[in-house]
Amino acid sequence: MDKLLLDAGSGGLASHRLVAELFLKHFDNPVLAAMNDAAFLEGDAEGRPLAMSTDAYTVDPPEFPGGDIGSLAIHGTVNDVAMLGAEPRWITCAFILEEGLDMAFLERVVRSMDKAARDAGVIIAAGDTKVVPRGAVDRIFITTTGVGPVLVDPAPMGHRAAPGDVVLLSGSVGDHGLTVLGTREGLSFQADVQSDSAALNHIVKDLVTELPEVHVLRDPTRGGLATTLNEIAGQSSAVIRVEEKAIPISPAVASGCSFLGLDPLYLANEGKLLCILPGQYAEAALEIMRRHEAGAGAVRIGQVEDPDGATYGRAGQVVLTTTLGGSRLLSMLEGEQLPRIC
Amino acid sequence: MDKLLLDAGSGGLASHRLVAELFLKHFDNPVLAAMNDAAFLEGDAEGRPLAMSTDAYTVDPPEFPGGDIGSLAIHGTVNDVAMLGAEPRWITCAFILEEGLDMAFLERVVRSMDKAARDAGVIIAAGDTKVVPRGAVDRIFITTTGVGPVLVDPAPMGHRAAPGDVVLLSGSVGDHGLTVLGTREGLSFQADVQSDSAALNHIVKDLVTELPEVHVLRDPTRGGLATTLNEIAGQSSAVIRVEEKAIPISPAVASGCSFLGLDPLYLANEGKLLCILPGQYAEAALEIMRRHEAGAGAVRIGQVEDPDGATYGRAGQVVLTTTLGGSRLLSMLEGEQLPRIC
Repeated sequence: MDKLLLDAGSGGLASHRLVAELFLKHFDNPVLAAMNDAAFLEGDAEGRPLAMSTDAYTVDPPEFPGGDIGSLAIHGTVNDVAMLGAEPRWITCAFILEEGLDMAFLERVVRSMDKAARDAGVIIAAGDTKVVPRGAVDRIFITTTGVGPVLVDPAPMGHRAAPGDVVLLSGSVGDHGLTVLGTREGLSFQADVQSDSAALNHIVKDLVTELPEVHVLRDPTRGGLATTLNEIAGQSSAVIRVEEKAIPISPAVASGCSFLGLDPLYLANEGKLLCILPGQYAEAALEIMRRHEAGAGAVRIGQVEDPDGATYGRAGQVVLTTTLGGSRLLSMLEGEQLPRIC
Repeated sequence: MDKLLLDAGSGGLASHRLVAELFLKHFDNPVLAAMNDAAFLEGDAEGRPLAMSTDAYTVDPPEFPGGDIGSLAIHGTVNDVAMLGAEPRWITCAFILEEGLDMAFLERVVRSMDKAARDAGVIIAAGDTKVVPRGAVDRIFITTTGVGPVLVDPAPMGHRAAPGDVVLLSGSVGDHGLTVLGTREGLSFQADVQSDSAALNHIVKDLVTELPEVHVLRDPTRGGLATTLNEIAGQSSAVIRVEEKAIPISPAVASGCSFLGLDPLYLANEGKLLCILPGQYAEAALEIMRRHEAGAGAVRIGQVEDPDGATYGRAGQVVLTTTLGGSRLLSMLEGEQLPRIC
């Protein structure tokens, strides 16, 4: 590949290849090589370790039902930090703005970021603004970086899924992806769907402080539920089996996806989390999640299996029990389903 | 203003207005309101406080004599964190890449970032990559965020310049700005100039750990030396007087600026620092700076004066003693001299 292809930004296999063959090859250090969405920083001798994460937001269009690029940039980074069992405290924002941008629009975005940060309880600690000549950027891109102390030891990590664990999901999937696509293309079903963009740090804090063990927390963003489950199965060398009929999908998302030929299991979510933990804590975890508005639709969708004892699938694979009772592999997203979804 | 103007990204007065009227208005918190280039995060009860800073890099062209957007993105953020008297330890990188980007170019940039990070002693802790369709971004933008412990208490801050302090500068000014402009426009003088892009954290560490008092550290980037001095004079409510003939400017930069009608005091630097501290430590500070390659040209350029006793200028103003011995105000950059300089 001598020219960068669009699907290298998809969050799926092509993205993983770019990261492995370019970034990890050069930026070779143990912190980055852990390949979580956020990094652990060694704390001071006395203090707790910190988690840190960054994401660039380029969503098109920048305003959509249920949110905008500003709230999304807060929620997305807050969630990435939280998924390490950490409490996001500080966030920085770097804006790249196109000359001629409508100021009323920019003010709406900034106000929305501020509200999202307050609701999540994070402080916007520093920022930067670049204005580039017309045509050098499409309206507005925002990069946010979050930092906060890790609340538990050992922290939840992608490699800790173990046989006997259950897989819980905090609510329906596909809402964000379908909403952004529908708004971008001006499709009529968009009236019925809205982004699930939300901060998950309050749910995470309750989960990791009230339960004795939480193995994995992950938010299924780019690449969707299917891709995130594959990442976890791979990192843990386990088989993850999920029940198709247990995965919540709203009727509007189901019909929109069916109309457009999209699979909701590969659509981005921006306010959902996967929680993987020992079966005995499943009910308590679901109760904690359902206490929060963002977790009201929490359900159990599957379990982690020992690859040696699994009836279908090998270590690192995700198996779907279909609505008809059959088994099929649920693979990782290969190319780019939707560019600029977040 | 209902449309965003290009000069709102200049680092000068128009930038300050945008920050005050939009960002500070909405993101109202004491951490951000301190208006330093980096923020202090409260540490744990036991630990040292942390400094955190973010910057988006959009430099055009992305490769230029003396550096590229990759090394610049490391140096710039390392320096912003260091200027709070902190030791940058961890850095995150978020890439926004244009579909079709030349992969060999991207690999050069990544390799250059890696080298810059190693030389500065910072760990690239996390990253993100977005690829956007052709035309949605001009080749490559990189946002970096740095974090590290603050080494001294009280830390150097923009408001701590005091009468009796001297103003030291680590070397010549204008090199980065003129190099980028010359490369962009294909001007022939460019053979003689190169960017000063460099990490200053090693100099800062020696300054703050070896000297009993350092009042202000600041790197004169966008808006140049003149704008940075004005920021400090304003934050400290002092008069800062600098000697025109003491400010080092390379012959190539002087002649390039003269040819193009640019003032080198307003051109961006990416590897220079201003150090303001009590007069009795001036010689020791210069020796420390000169020990390092990036500080080899360190000189004293002026002093801080009490506004009540100053012969010229009011609190918050910068006065230039001209080569002819007269005095004139050196104002802040008003509009945009050069977009996409960093």
